[in-house]
Amino acid sequence: MAAQPKKIIIDTDPGIDDAMAIFLALRSPEVELIGLTTIFGNVYTTLATRNALHLLEVAGRTDIPVAEGSHVTITKDMKLRVADFVHGADGLGNQNFPRPKGEPIEQSAAAFLIEQANLYPGKVTVVALGALTNIALAIQQDPAFSKNIGQIILLGGAFAINGNVNPAAEANIFGDPDAADIVFTSGADVVAVGLNVTHQVVLTDDDRQKLARSDGKFAQYLCKILEVYFSYHDYAYNTKGVFLHDPTTLLAAVDPSLMTYAKGVVRVQTSGITRGLTLLHDTQKRFGEVTEWSDKPTVKVAVTVDAPAILNLVMERLMDS
Amino acid sequence: MAAQPKKIIIDTDPGIDDAMAIFLALRSPEVELIGLTTIFGNVYTTLATRNALHLLEVAGRTDIPVAEGSHVTITKDMKLRVADFVHGADGLGNQNFPRPKGEPIEQSAAAFLIEQANLYPGKVTVVALGALTNIALAIQQDPAFSKNIGQIILLGGAFAINGNVNPAAEANIFGDPDAADIVFTSGADVVAVGLNVTHQVVLTDDDRQKLARSDGKFAQYLCKILEVYFSYHDYAYNTKGVFLHDPTTLLAAVDPSLMTYAKGVVRVQTSGITRGLTLLHDTQKRFGEVTEWSDKPTVKVAVTVDAPAILNLVMERLMDS
Repeated sequence: MAAQPKKIIIDTDPGIDDAMAIFLALRSPEVELIGLTTIFGNVYTTLATRNALHLLEVAGRTDIPVAEGSHVTITKDMKLRVADFVHGADGLGNQNFPRPKGEPIEQSAAAFLIEQANLYPGKVTVVALGALTNIALAIQQDPAFSKNIGQIILLGGAFAINGNVNPAAEANIFGDPDAADIVFTSGADVVAVGLNVTHQVVLTDDDRQKLARSDGKFAQYLCKILEVYFSYHDYAYNTKGVFLHDPTTLLAAVDPSLMTYAKGVVRVQTSGITRGLTLLHDTQKRFGEVTEWSDKPTVKVAVTVDAPAILNLVMERLMDS
Repeated sequence: MAAQPKKIIIDTDPGIDDAMAIFLALRSPEVELIGLTTIFGNVYTTLATRNALHLLEVAGRTDIPVAEGSHVTITKDMKLRVADFVHGADGLGNQNFPRPKGEPIEQSAAAFLIEQANLYPGKVTVVALGALTNIALAIQQDPAFSKNIGQIILLGGAFAINGNVNPAAEANIFGDPDAADIVFTSGADVVAVGLNVTHQVVLTDDDRQKLARSDGKFAQYLCKILEVYFSYHDYAYNTKGVFLHDPTTLLAAVDPSLMTYAKGVVRVQTSGITRGLTLLHDTQKRFGEVTEWSDKPTVKVAVTVDAPAILNLVMERLMDS
């Protein structure tokens, strides 16, 4: 383990698996959670902020700042798609939790991201779990952000497999394709964890029962909100288990060796029937013409994952009391 | 082997590997070549027609009709992309073959396709080796064509891998994406053989030398034109071998069991940076929303291929004297 924990900011749209990822971060000595920024995706941004504050209160970590993010896509004109049918109308399994006491900080998410990247150049990792609008805004507002930010580890894309919004697109990229294309081509150190990887990491009903039997505070909390998430997976995928999208992405920050990565240029289709599609150029072919992938910065895309190791970490750390 | 050979029409843009496919068809007792229709792709349509006539004269099969196809994409406004840098300026390895004596028939390619499908309902297979404009025109001009045509086996698409025009698109689909989308969603019995399969079938330099040593007429002819094709592969893929795109697709008509197939809906992106991308919906996920893939007819997409068996057939039949 590194002597100095890695500073991370989670950009989040809680979200049931966001809650798991946030708790996991708080239980991971390898990382230090220095802030949450909020964004739309599983819920609208206002509710994401409320849920972020609520989760930090549940964890007794109200010392961690929450910065509210964008309420609209980067082009400002796109209809938002919110996945309340996956996470419940409240984003947290329809549990009607009390309104949190805390408030977000004055800074916007983008301003907070820029400030922290400037404060600790090359030392801050953003773990982005929702639409990529805040990160794209930070890139647009500060030309030095892509350099100052240590790494951007994002849950997004479906590489060489079907999406989850439609056959072409994964939800976070679909949520703001223009923002995603800005992030992928920014030149920052970007790691994309897509459905091709997260669909391999499944929390089964047996695992959930194990969580329920533990006396871990987080395990107990999560078991309350997980029911809605299990119901959705049963309906949509006909399976008695749930994909650990956000926890898997968080663990890529905790221990990068849990995955292997391909390197290449990723572009996002921003219009038409495959809007939100992520396309990685990973062949070695020399094309006859200049393409939209030519001379763009490369990123890393997760291609294989040690799913049992990830599941073990998730279970161990969340059951800890 | 079936008692009755399968009637096939090859829609072609010769093209070095088109020449191989046409010769292979003439040497395959399982199929009866009842016509060639021409299209742009490797060359412009006018040159495709000239080359089709030339190849039939080389084979001594001027009894087989050639019907000239469209000179423009189905939307009529797209700039044509012609791969003369792959096949030579003449499409046949820069050999300056004499102008053929024959002429195409009066009928257009689309009219010929419609007529033959009506003459032998359910019995004619189109093997489509270029842009899909002629097939889409036949579908538009005759509402019964998709039903009357037995099968459309097409070389096209790159399923879950990068394309060959750019990272997103394969050349035949890129050549006329709107036509391709019409064909894929027509309801006809469509089999797509994409780069994911044809990139596995490689004629090596050793194989070429074997062809050169045989006294087969076709082998001798092909060795003359193959040099340009080898040079291109050396440049573009850094490899001393050539992909057998068209012969592989032809052999899917000769013996469908040489490949395995996935079944699903394929749509083509017709605009933006991934124009020409083919996207197969093959997950079992139940999407929350209606998608552009919902309620569309399914097609078959080749996913695995017995490459050694295909190479053996190609070599054996082309070396035959």
